[in-house]
Amino acid sequence: MTTNEYQVTGMTCGHCELSIREEVGEIAGVQDIAVSAATGKLTVTGTVDDAQVLAAVEEAGYSAVRAA
Amino acid sequence: MTTNEYQVTGMTCGHCELSIREEVGEIAGVQDIAVSAATGKLTVTGTVDDAQVLAAVEEAGYSAVRAA
Repeated sequence: MTTNEYQVTGMTCGHCELSIREEVGEIAGVQDIAVSAATGKLTVTGTVDDAQVLAAVEEAGYSAVRAA
Repeated sequence: MTTNEYQVTGMTCGHCELSIREEVGEIAGVQDIAVSAATGKLTVTGTVDDAQVLAAVEEAGYSAVRAA
């Protein structure tokens, strides 16, 4: 289990956070999610591929890149 | 039936528009709703009191005033 950080573009409010939380939460293996519209930071803990996380963020209507 | 315009504070995105649309849409007598996060403008057509519209906007988590 690892914790990966992503930088999300386009979130403006709590509804945006919720949309991303919902989509990423549907990925099997995700244990915990932290997401902030203020910083654009998305932190995902679990056993999950970057590609799945990035696809889920896109599904929610935003774009993201893996952070350092 | 009249069309009234309101200025809403705090909408940032399409999710915000949807929240307001849902709450205002629950008011009996509302025929049509136009809402824009970009301009903050909410236009409600129907037979409905200002007070009900303003309360619905507050219920959605925003504030509004009747426009001219």
